[in-house]
Amino acid sequence: MFNKTSFLDRAQELVAAGRELHAQGWVPATSGNFSARVDEQHIAITVSGRHKGRLTTEDIMLIDYQGQSLDGKKPSAETALHTQIYQHFPEANVVLHPHSPAATAISRKYKDRLILENYELLKALSGITTHANKVGIPIFQNDQDIPRLAEEVAACLKEYPDIKGYLIAGHGFYTWGKTAEDALRHVEALEFLFDQELLSLRISPS
Amino acid sequence: MFNKTSFLDRAQELVAAGRELHAQGWVPATSGNFSARVDEQHIAITVSGRHKGRLTTEDIMLIDYQGQSLDGKKPSAETALHTQIYQHFPEANVVLHPHSPAATAISRKYKDRLILENYELLKALSGITTHANKVGIPIFQNDQDIPRLAEEVAACLKEYPDIKGYLIAGHGFYTWGKTAEDALRHVEALEFLFDQELLSLRISPS
Amino acid sequence: MFNKTSFLDRAQELVAAGRELHAQGWVPATSGNFSARVDEQHIAITVSGRHKGRLTTEDIMLIDYQGQSLDGKKPSAETALHTQIYQHFPEANVVLHPHSPAATAISRKYKDRLILENYELLKALSGITTHANKVGIPIFQNDQDIPRLAEEVAACLKEYPDIKGYLIAGHGFYTWGKTAEDALRHVEALEFLFDQELLSLRISPS
Amino acid sequence: MFNKTSFLDRAQELVAAGRELHAQGWVPATSGNFSARVDEQHIAITVSGRHKGRLTTEDIMLIDYQGQSLDGKKPSAETALHTQIYQHFPEANVVLHPHSPAATAISRKYKDRLILENYELLKALSGITTHANKVGIPIFQNDQDIPRLAEEVAACLKEYPDIKGYLIAGHGFYTWGKTAEDALRHVEALEFLFDQELLSLRISPS
Repeated sequence: MFNKTSFLDRAQELVAAGRELHAQGWVPATSGNFSARVDEQHIAITVSGRHKGRLTTEDIMLIDYQGQSLDGKKPSAETALHTQIYQHFPEANVVLHPHSPAATAISRKYKDRLILENYELLKALSGITTHANKVGIPIFQNDQDIPRLAEEVAACLKEYPDIKGYLIAGHGFYTWGKTAEDALRHVEALEFLFDQELLSLRISPS
Repeated sequence: MFNKTSFLDRAQELVAAGRELHAQGWVPATSGNFSARVDEQHIAITVSGRHKGRLTTEDIMLIDYQGQSLDGKKPSAETALHTQIYQHFPEANVVLHPHSPAATAISRKYKDRLILENYELLKALSGITTHANKVGIPIFQNDQDIPRLAEEVAACLKEYPDIKGYLIAGHGFYTWGKTAEDALRHVEALEFLFDQELLSLRISPS
Repeated sequence: MFNKTSFLDRAQELVAAGRELHAQGWVPATSGNFSARVDEQHIAITVSGRHKGRLTTEDIMLIDYQGQSLDGKKPSAETALHTQIYQHFPEANVVLHPHSPAATAISRKYKDRLILENYELLKALSGITTHANKVGIPIFQNDQDIPRLAEEVAACLKEYPDIKGYLIAGHGFYTWGKTAEDALRHVEALEFLFDQELLSLRISPS
Repeated sequence: MFNKTSFLDRAQELVAAGRELHAQGWVPATSGNFSARVDEQHIAITVSGRHKGRLTTEDIMLIDYQGQSLDGKKPSAETALHTQIYQHFPEANVVLHPHSPAATAISRKYKDRLILENYELLKALSGITTHANKVGIPIFQNDQDIPRLAEEVAACLKEYPDIKGYLIAGHGFYTWGKTAEDALRHVEALEFLFDQELLSLRISPS
């Protein structure tokens, strides 16, 4: 029983998210990919290789929870990272993977993880109630072998089941939320925090 | 005797301010909050947790000068910082609290205060008539206990009764003005000056 | 014999320039001022203290070549710097004074002058035909005494009669052109070059 | 047999590209130039000295493969660099030469070439399938003698026949694609990568 209207609503949210993120410079060229849970059998996801600032609903396709195409289109190469998030976080309904300058630069600077602390904006991440929290953002080495990368993410999720997002070195970050609005808020907050970390690296020697 | 039209006018000014500040990247995610004096009994203020770039007048609520909600909505957690400003500065009618990258980075770099000097743009701050003035911007440590933070601000206002704004570490800044236009001018000017201070830290070793 | 249409045409060009420069962040708050030659007796100039991103033709006024108001409005405090340029450069018909972050930061870094060299974009400055030219941009110390500042500029113009613009420390820059389009091209080019100089200061130690 | 419609289609693509690149700050003042293959005898190219953010189809002219004007207008001074690319890369149909801050700064920092590696966004360049590829971007010294510069580029193309773009010191970069969309994707990707390299230079000493 597939609900076409529900798919189109999700697709339109992803199209709008793409325009918003591209306007900020956070999905340059054909980088990034987005998805949304449609129902217990279907996920909407961006078609491989499309420019995220110029998406139409034709660029959003249907896959199942094994990442198989349900409509003949070719999904993003990183589909397995999306389905994994939906399986691990039952409350996540939208997954966004931007590829911003700050996220990319900071992901190449540190190994393993970035610790964020003493930022009021940490409170924009669901479940964080004070700036004094230490929030760890895992960093994975980039890998074109997505199943292998997904396994590393899986091991990390086992150890840290409530992370709010993760970085891939030289390759942006993943974050998610209950709604498109939540996921976009997480993107804005993490992007701001990555940029702050970069700024403080640049002024720290003084 | 509450004037509904007056409230809606103020609410629309705050909605417009939010759109303008968000377009600059100065209120990322759900950060920041804004208020405006309606009359001697009423203050309009942003509802807690709303995205400042997408406000409607429904996201602006009414409180009294003790910070109590008058319409059942939940005001910003930092309401006490707003009411304090209206009580201390009789000529202040609009209070803006942006959370910009430059303000946040500079607020984490210095302790206690930032001194601004030799900037023509200091003249954009009400009452400053020459770039040669030294303008001190107090920096408070961030605190989730807002009454305690308000007490620190109160002590500072006693000592420096004519400050033009203040920073909270890792948490942006507060400024105010006679009108929304004045307050926005103060935001633009302070933001520019914080960014200049950051720039000079980055080039100073040479 | 004053031509009202000609004044309004010039005023509209200044309004448009203001919107364009403010959108770039080059005239924050009420900084900056602009003018245009109307005829041999009249100059159009921005009224003192207006926000340059929100100008209307009401914010543009008429002065004579001695800088006296001809319509009862109060011209920019820096009017004498504008009239001086029209008197020195007969071919200049538009003068723009932006107050951008890069110009302000670079003007505080160097004393006396900035030398620009090996930039293709130097060719965007009228009369420069190769990147190999050395272009000197004078830097004056900021001064609230505008007649005194104008004297320093006069001495410099005597020695270097064909400069393309100048910086005032902590206070942006002046440039000019035959048309509004020329002057705006000079702004874009100088702004780019000041930003390049700042960038190279930040990466130079390596 | 010249197809006017085909020329106008290409011209409109270049006009749109100009608006998009200028909005990003990548063709300041009158910098940059663009072209598109019309057919085996004709190339559309930007007229010399026009502002790329305000192009109309009147600012696009016709040349032949020797770079001669076919309509009396004066083509960009760098026309020979465009025709060379069309002759070397039969699949290239659009050539874009932006003049962005990051490209200009990085082109002045290194001699001979820039090596890009470990960036997922390398995959946005046609023919690159993994972030692990080393992609070399040649850097040529700037030269107002365009035939001499074209000879240096020719020697480089002989040695590295499949480069994706090149930098000219202090003068931006050239890249190309099968379609305007491809060429714009290359611009966005290279711009992002040049900016990353600049960022890492600024944080590397720590």
